[in-house]
Amino acid sequence: MPAALVGALVDGRPNYLTIAYCGAVNHEPPIISVGLNKKHYTNRGIKENGTFSLNIPSADMVKITDYCGLVSGHRVDKSNIFKTFYGSLKTAPLIEECPLSLECRVVQVLELAMQNVYLGQVIQAYAEDRFLTNGLPDIKKMNPIVFSMHDNNYWTVGEHLGRAWSIGKELKAGLGGAR
Amino acid sequence: MPAALVGALVDGRPNYLTIAYCGAVNHEPPIISVGLNKKHYTNRGIKENGTFSLNIPSADMVKITDYCGLVSGHRVDKSNIFKTFYGSLKTAPLIEECPLSLECRVVQVLELAMQNVYLGQVIQAYAEDRFLTNGLPDIKKMNPIVFSMHDNNYWTVGEHLGRAWSIGKELKAGLGGAR
Repeated sequence: MPAALVGALVDGRPNYLTIAYCGAVNHEPPIISVGLNKKHYTNRGIKENGTFSLNIPSADMVKITDYCGLVSGHRVDKSNIFKTFYGSLKTAPLIEECPLSLECRVVQVLELAMQNVYLGQVIQAYAEDRFLTNGLPDIKKMNPIVFSMHDNNYWTVGEHLGRAWSIGKELKAGLGGAR
Repeated sequence: MPAALVGALVDGRPNYLTIAYCGAVNHEPPIISVGLNKKHYTNRGIKENGTFSLNIPSADMVKITDYCGLVSGHRVDKSNIFKTFYGSLKTAPLIEECPLSLECRVVQVLELAMQNVYLGQVIQAYAEDRFLTNGLPDIKKMNPIVFSMHDNNYWTVGEHLGRAWSIGKELKAGLGGAR
């Protein structure tokens, strides 16, 4: 699972929550899903504004990332722990320190048993040039955090294994699909 | 993103498709989401049976994992490339070679613009003891594949960064939440 920070404006103040229940659900337009335990403070901000952000912290932000999952916005004001900026949606606070930030408009809400799942269309993605290679996000430059659940550990992304839609081609001759 | 293999029974034969659009959406009961481009052969099997599997391949399976994303079940029979087994659902083919396999019953289908998103309740999870530590999945023993999109590369999980719900505690004194 990825470790990510969801940003929302609650009572006019930015709040940031650490989550791992997130991922892509549609390619074009780009839509991501974000699942939040219904008890979380952040839910109210997302529902009221119909917007949120998903920010990908780098490995060197692992302590502050963990902190955002340890303390609730119900009790602690987390509005000043990052430098916040806003895009065209105006109500989705984005984290300047994160190598990648996605500004999202809610297109659908699923109320499951324990989680609210927000499907958010990515309106804009933000990354500094130093995190890109050939104009694309570079996972090694961004150095995101991998989370393993239940044993509760954080990890880096490791070594390169190969190119996708490529390294499997050599199996086509033996297994089928060659032409 | 994780690299995973979705299994479904199509016309009575197991078929396996590589995907990255997947993740957890609800904690209890455990529900995952899997997004498939609507053109994929696998959709019909999932819709007809209301079941599928999500299998996590290890890094040493990277070539066969890539292969399953390169060739379509429309043209190539992929039913024999893995050892298949079944659980109580009977219609969700599972991959014996994968360190972790989740057997799922469809609880909701979202038809988005390009993807069908299947929410699947995990009925059973399968892993051999050698991939567990203290009875829990061990990400280093399972050695899953991380996928970076657009530049299209596969990666391992790297070094340990710290314990979740733990290493951020030291920031409480300065940032708030200490008690």
